[in-house]
Amino acid sequence: MSDLRIAVVGAGLMGADHIIRINSRIVGAVVTAVVEPDEGRARAAMENAPSATWYSSIEDALQAQAIDAVLIATPGQFHEPVLMPVLAAGLPILCEKPLTPDSASALRVVEAEMAAGKKLIQVGFMRRFDAGYMELRELIANKEQGELLGLHCAHRNPTVPESYHNDMLIFDSVVHEIDAVRYLTDSPIASVEVRHFKRNTKSPSHLNEPILVMLETESSVLAVVEMNVSAQFGYQVRTEAIFEEGLAEIGRTSGMTTNFASQISMAENTSFKPRFAAAYDLQVQRWVNAATQGLIDGPSAWDGYLAASAVEAGLEALHTGGKASVSYMPIPDFYSGR
Amino acid sequence: MSDLRIAVVGAGLMGADHIIRINSRIVGAVVTAVVEPDEGRARAAMENAPSATWYSSIEDALQAQAIDAVLIATPGQFHEPVLMPVLAAGLPILCEKPLTPDSASALRVVEAEMAAGKKLIQVGFMRRFDAGYMELRELIANKEQGELLGLHCAHRNPTVPESYHNDMLIFDSVVHEIDAVRYLTDSPIASVEVRHFKRNTKSPSHLNEPILVMLETESSVLAVVEMNVSAQFGYQVRTEAIFEEGLAEIGRTSGMTTNFASQISMAENTSFKPRFAAAYDLQVQRWVNAATQGLIDGPSAWDGYLAASAVEAGLEALHTGGKASVSYMPIPDFYSGR
Amino acid sequence: MSDLRIAVVGAGLMGADHIIRINSRIVGAVVTAVVEPDEGRARAAMENAPSATWYSSIEDALQAQAIDAVLIATPGQFHEPVLMPVLAAGLPILCEKPLTPDSASALRVVEAEMAAGKKLIQVGFMRRFDAGYMELRELIANKEQGELLGLHCAHRNPTVPESYHNDMLIFDSVVHEIDAVRYLTDSPIASVEVRHFKRNTKSPSHLNEPILVMLETESSVLAVVEMNVSAQFGYQVRTEAIFEEGLAEIGRTSGMTTNFASQISMAENTSFKPRFAAAYDLQVQRWVNAATQGLIDGPSAWDGYLAASAVEAGLEALHTGGKASVSYMPIPDFYSGR
Amino acid sequence: MSDLRIAVVGAGLMGADHIIRINSRIVGAVVTAVVEPDEGRARAAMENAPSATWYSSIEDALQAQAIDAVLIATPGQFHEPVLMPVLAAGLPILCEKPLTPDSASALRVVEAEMAAGKKLIQVGFMRRFDAGYMELRELIANKEQGELLGLHCAHRNPTVPESYHNDMLIFDSVVHEIDAVRYLTDSPIASVEVRHFKRNTKSPSHLNEPILVMLETESSVLAVVEMNVSAQFGYQVRTEAIFEEGLAEIGRTSGMTTNFASQISMAENTSFKPRFAAAYDLQVQRWVNAATQGLIDGPSAWDGYLAASAVEAGLEALHTGGKASVSYMPIPDFYSGR
Repeated sequence: MSDLRIAVVGAGLMGADHIIRINSRIVGAVVTAVVEPDEGRARAAMENAPSATWYSSIEDALQAQAIDAVLIATPGQFHEPVLMPVLAAGLPILCEKPLTPDSASALRVVEAEMAAGKKLIQVGFMRRFDAGYMELRELIANKEQGELLGLHCAHRNPTVPESYHNDMLIFDSVVHEIDAVRYLTDSPIASVEVRHFKRNTKSPSHLNEPILVMLETESSVLAVVEMNVSAQFGYQVRTEAIFEEGLAEIGRTSGMTTNFASQISMAENTSFKPRFAAAYDLQVQRWVNAATQGLIDGPSAWDGYLAASAVEAGLEALHTGGKASVSYMPIPDFYSGR
Repeated sequence: MSDLRIAVVGAGLMGADHIIRINSRIVGAVVTAVVEPDEGRARAAMENAPSATWYSSIEDALQAQAIDAVLIATPGQFHEPVLMPVLAAGLPILCEKPLTPDSASALRVVEAEMAAGKKLIQVGFMRRFDAGYMELRELIANKEQGELLGLHCAHRNPTVPESYHNDMLIFDSVVHEIDAVRYLTDSPIASVEVRHFKRNTKSPSHLNEPILVMLETESSVLAVVEMNVSAQFGYQVRTEAIFEEGLAEIGRTSGMTTNFASQISMAENTSFKPRFAAAYDLQVQRWVNAATQGLIDGPSAWDGYLAASAVEAGLEALHTGGKASVSYMPIPDFYSGR
Repeated sequence: MSDLRIAVVGAGLMGADHIIRINSRIVGAVVTAVVEPDEGRARAAMENAPSATWYSSIEDALQAQAIDAVLIATPGQFHEPVLMPVLAAGLPILCEKPLTPDSASALRVVEAEMAAGKKLIQVGFMRRFDAGYMELRELIANKEQGELLGLHCAHRNPTVPESYHNDMLIFDSVVHEIDAVRYLTDSPIASVEVRHFKRNTKSPSHLNEPILVMLETESSVLAVVEMNVSAQFGYQVRTEAIFEEGLAEIGRTSGMTTNFASQISMAENTSFKPRFAAAYDLQVQRWVNAATQGLIDGPSAWDGYLAASAVEAGLEALHTGGKASVSYMPIPDFYSGR
Repeated sequence: MSDLRIAVVGAGLMGADHIIRINSRIVGAVVTAVVEPDEGRARAAMENAPSATWYSSIEDALQAQAIDAVLIATPGQFHEPVLMPVLAAGLPILCEKPLTPDSASALRVVEAEMAAGKKLIQVGFMRRFDAGYMELRELIANKEQGELLGLHCAHRNPTVPESYHNDMLIFDSVVHEIDAVRYLTDSPIASVEVRHFKRNTKSPSHLNEPILVMLETESSVLAVVEMNVSAQFGYQVRTEAIFEEGLAEIGRTSGMTTNFASQISMAENTSFKPRFAAAYDLQVQRWVNAATQGLIDGPSAWDGYLAASAVEAGLEALHTGGKASVSYMPIPDFYSGR
């Protein structure tokens, strides 16, 4: 069977990374198109994609009829204008998170997908493909330690650029926990509250963090998130689950242990890339395998809409200091029944 | 030098334990009096105190003039009537936590101690003598990883008796974190908030827990406490500190590791006794050493008053669901300057 | 560029596993031939290889001219008759360990490869592609903790079948450590000694193990191996390296930690497959990438010969109880210079 | 009951440490005599022993009749002349390891003790009072994981002084493992072999170490010891036990974990004092408790003789490179039956 021909939209950091991934580590797929208005950036990324053609717009790429599927790796605010024509063309899509920046636009995408008559969109919440999250979800589902009661989540970045602002704590960073909590509990977020730890003076001066975010699910599970983007020491994503009869923890570093200079040490990750390398690979491989059969195998556009709605409540909670409830449209039959 | 003659007041679980401790593991002290209205209980405990005489009241014990110091191990509501005559007699006291059940009575004790002209009372917040807490406090103070920003505290009991009720989550259990946070940060608690995790159906039916307690210090450090008294799997007290440039964790179990039946395992503690055995011993030894020289060497009556005030706010937060501020009297010169 | 067409020789456990690997996880390769005298076994394995043709002999497969490379996954005693015609045909080979069962036959293969004029054979010592071994080798090479002085190696299988006999402890199991020690130290094994731990009564009755194997390299590093094939609790391969100024350990299990029933636990692997899954994948991917360019990227036939010679000394040491020296032919120019 | 009056013999490093221990941490005992030919050294140590009198010889101390028990903390070659008069006087003794430097002198002590008619000597193998060793011994005895098959022991000192010579590897350092293996297995050492790791260039130039020592017990358990006295990074004593169905490890460091500068770290001990602080305290407390009742509660003079015999075999093994058997006198009824 011939390889799935993929158009990668956006040749920035994530797009360039996906191009390398698809061509060196993903079976049954090849990058045949790079869609990017900046030709220089496109050409640089295409050094790792010998079979790819450059297009300045998704419309041109679609018209050339040389692609079977689309991976969207542009910033969230540019997703909708790419999603719409690809949905119209009926091609399978892997769309980096967030689906769109807000719930209204997410709903428009959901409606367009329903109009296309088939689930075409998988959203890039890659944590769902991390071995730890999958193992924890299984333990929650099989109830070996009883019901899940709560989650302690820590999301720590070493640093962020000056351009990172307070709202991004929610829509760019906590969004991962929002989807992860839903994935783990199979229940949408019902409310969000935000508190502040003492401000880290190492943060950019306009940032007030780390923050504490409380996500309560419709099933009454309380997830307590430390969102910390100036942790300095490394990149770390850990979750501890509280059950009725026990605990489970994921995200501890593994690897070589050294004993040196009176210290017993292991190296911590320094960026999200090594932390989630295997998860990104598995996400794309499973999407490729499913797309080849006209399916998706991961979070749907509806999951993207749910996350966008919870992010809106999170922003409200951040701005007001109060508890923000999340309201959702009823789930269409199209998306129910997993 | 002859041994410090100690009266142990209360021959319940804690009192009986202190009698064994003093006579078998503490240098320079001997139990010469057991004060306990229930003679049978007193006689049982005295099997480990061959040099002790039984008294039904503290007044009788004081009158006999056969004691140099008093260790109070009765429930908190009975402390004040014992503290007052002992203060009047000018003897050094180790008083199990809480000093008294509320801030008004704690203030009366503080005033009585000031009237006695000398610090005589040490409150039994034994965590201040745990190696982990001491090591963490040192790291906070020396700022090797920058300023402390927040604390994640987990306090997990395997089970509690039917008699344990919701308010005890605050005044009997979280009170330890209240003092520990102050000890670690050198700053009093400024406000308290309480949230609920999903209820554990293994808890007694009148209990709604585990709970999440947020303690904010006057110095803006936010401590996030999981208070969980039906954790089933074991007894566990852990703290993770978030610094500007790193993290530190205390309370992980040590001991033998076994590889058996596809599991690599370590045993967790099953009660507070092994978890804090060394801390209790060190607390009493340092109190004995100090008392011999007319001093105290641990948390004072003022610390007891601060904790009682924060507990009151904690109960208000538990009952109202809102944020409760803590107000304190200004610290008297008598207690300031450590 | 079209995929590398691979013939898998041998459709037993390892061969069937490689077929699945190549077709589902390896980029740029496809199984186009399965060489296996037992047609039923071949057909079963070919269910995962839709593009493959069955051949009962390597000669038939070569004659059909539909393959670019050969992966040999038969037992060691059947390697030579496959290797020789493939070398004559000039195709790249990945040969499961051992290259051949003894040094004389290994030397014949080496000579045949030299006669072919080009390195065509890579031997399947997959540990060289394990992240831990690679990280440890780097630490040894960069001397950050000074010179390497010794190694403690533990190789533990849960059980072995009745057909496993004492000599297999050396030629089937310790052979992995023999190559790993050479890989880590860049120095061949100079001598071997064997001692016995107390016999495990859980072993098949004709087996006398676990054993202790001492491998000394020409560079004077002493590697101490616990070879244990009835460890019951799980599959475990660990190495601890002693340096002049420190230690390093690899092979500790990672993954989810649970606290349950008074135990803090992690799961251990139960077979070599999960333990070395990533190493097998990386080994085959790097072989495929190299083969496409007419190269090898892993242990050579000469490494296979060195291991076969050390295995012979190991068997002598096992049989005599004495110290057996290993003698090697001088390394031909063809293989020197890495 | 009045305190046990102890004479500490030898006011060097160990003696001074025991004086502080007895007077600050041991219940029911007081140092009333310091026996030390060097008056200045004695006076320095006596600053922590306000109730003690200085004696230049054990005979003078015995004659003064102001002591109830004797703790011998001089180097091993000076033990016999102190042991003999104290045995004659019938006082209980805690004698630092080794009992005496060789088996002949150890036998003389054993005979003198039998002549005294009562077990008076406890030998200071403090590892028998370490929580890890006690826990492991229990697991071996209860056979929860089947029979013990072997032990991997690591004994690592950061550095040794220039005066430390090769034989001391055996009689000063490995002697701890010799007793520990017997304690764990309840079986005497039957033979000893010694091999060398690559020499550490950080060692004093006359030392050839680390060494590998194989101790085989009469019960066929093989203990494999890494004896390493220039480990640089810290002080570490670990043991891993191989059972028929599992493993157990003791000696891993516990304590605060920090995440800082891309490393997750715990501190390792830097000397034997913190590593075995609790074991030393417990050893002396249990000796005091037993001595008060005319008993011993730890390794006997016979254990001291067994260790001295195995040390002799160890030295032979070190000097010859061969396997040295250990021969023992039959155990007298006086010592059998624990």
